[in-house]
Amino acid sequence: MANPQIDAIREWLASKPRPTALAERRARMLTLVDRYTIAPDVRIEATDADGVPAEWTLTPVADPKRVVLFLHGGAYIAGGIATHRHMVAQIGRVARARTLALDYRLAPEHPFPAALEDALTGYRYLLSRGYAPAHIAIAGESAGGGLALAMLVSLRQIGVDLPACAWLSSPWTDLDMTGASMESKADVDPLIQKPYLLEAAAAYLNGADPRTPLASPLYADLAGLPPLFIQVGTAETLLDDAMRLARRAAQTDVRVVLDVWPEMIHAWSLFYQQLDAGQQSLESMGAFVRSMLERK
Amino acid sequence: MANPQIDAIREWLASKPRPTALAERRARMLTLVDRYTIAPDVRIEATDADGVPAEWTLTPVADPKRVVLFLHGGAYIAGGIATHRHMVAQIGRVARARTLALDYRLAPEHPFPAALEDALTGYRYLLSRGYAPAHIAIAGESAGGGLALAMLVSLRQIGVDLPACAWLSSPWTDLDMTGASMESKADVDPLIQKPYLLEAAAAYLNGADPRTPLASPLYADLAGLPPLFIQVGTAETLLDDAMRLARRAAQTDVRVVLDVWPEMIHAWSLFYQQLDAGQQSLESMGAFVRSMLERK
Repeated sequence: MANPQIDAIREWLASKPRPTALAERRARMLTLVDRYTIAPDVRIEATDADGVPAEWTLTPVADPKRVVLFLHGGAYIAGGIATHRHMVAQIGRVARARTLALDYRLAPEHPFPAALEDALTGYRYLLSRGYAPAHIAIAGESAGGGLALAMLVSLRQIGVDLPACAWLSSPWTDLDMTGASMESKADVDPLIQKPYLLEAAAAYLNGADPRTPLASPLYADLAGLPPLFIQVGTAETLLDDAMRLARRAAQTDVRVVLDVWPEMIHAWSLFYQQLDAGQQSLESMGAFVRSMLERK
Repeated sequence: MANPQIDAIREWLASKPRPTALAERRARMLTLVDRYTIAPDVRIEATDADGVPAEWTLTPVADPKRVVLFLHGGAYIAGGIATHRHMVAQIGRVARARTLALDYRLAPEHPFPAALEDALTGYRYLLSRGYAPAHIAIAGESAGGGLALAMLVSLRQIGVDLPACAWLSSPWTDLDMTGASMESKADVDPLIQKPYLLEAAAAYLNGADPRTPLASPLYADLAGLPPLFIQVGTAETLLDDAMRLARRAAQTDVRVVLDVWPEMIHAWSLFYQQLDAGQQSLESMGAFVRSMLERK
């Protein structure tokens, strides 16, 4: 079952190996996506979410009362609004909602819990602007998926009303890297290898226990969380981070949909402009988010 | 998070305890659903699928080229067309397809592999009538879910073209009953307890190893199967039959969606006429089946 589209992306990734130095790593993430375009009907507005740099993207189909809060990937040390803008615009289109992307602080300059604090600030900012929790979906990819989950756990602990649902794309939920797929999928994953994650986790944790629930939400009590829509590829070292999360969520009576895509690599939806499966997975996510935001 | 609808169903089930004798057990299944109605726009046609008694249900929205082949639940010893007719009609409506329900042979009169042979006969019957494999979805509930999966594995082994996808509702995939939820969920499951399953499995297996892959498809090689849409409730002893199936499918690069419903009991979609979550879960299934049958 060869998929020429994913093969082309693998070749592209292989031609851009990850550098060692932090600044070059951050720059490389941008070069991986700089071929992608934003449709001309998308309106983009930079904003300040109570101190956290943020950006609205609005498509003509966006319901002005509904919003997806987006947390990008990049292992807590890279990524930003610019690396994910094209996908965030598409998320808004398929979810028929506004999207607010957050430029949360990165490690090592700002270790845990800085990113979590910024995510919480972003959510409270939406509440202060009049968005109802039942009209907010949280979305996160990779480290942003773990961060989204940690944010939900934190909101529940604080007692703030929870959003309607969350979309987690290839979430990194275990900074202790105990998933069996960390080894079993190493040969087929072109993006995420354990040594890289260990380095990033060390930068983010800054000495904290790698099983700290708000950094590694696989170890958190998930009871009471809103519905989770988890997507993961089978060619990922992080496959078991998603599988185990789904299992723990189910065991604690959380509504969870686990959507597993054969042959897909880490965070494949980011490549949706050259990957039908990426487009389809975003549409599945959009259908889920729409149904969750409509019901309330 | 009390759900008065599921509480009412639990009370109803408690008022109809499962008898010991086989004939009374079979009769009881009918009394559990005899309150449910078939909409007047549904056309029902009894047929003979090359020797297997079967029934077409057709709603006005059914695409005449697309079909869902349905395998009922009942632990391989009970259930039939009459017990599931109301749900099968609704499956056809949400999937916008014809449905063909099979009255496969039951144990102990007809042990393994009689049911599997009948399921295969039913599928070949559809092919002989001109339905394209890419326009056929397989659906099964409880034992019928395990049977659907066994049928897919068998078709792959024989070399017959596989259907487009399968919907498995609370599937019973492990006749060796090794799932942790068999004990951990025993207190909250009003329908399925291990002693009952052991008795039914013994009747079906008739001396065969409980890990025989075509009787317990959790132990089968799942490689090459079409997309699976698995639904399960969290108040089920069979929760882990679904969770483990999803994990094994993902590990062998099968497209799988695992859809977990908090508070829901075994095969809750059967009660959809008095249970919003049952209606919603059928709609989710319908959306999946439609998208899979449309793509081909």
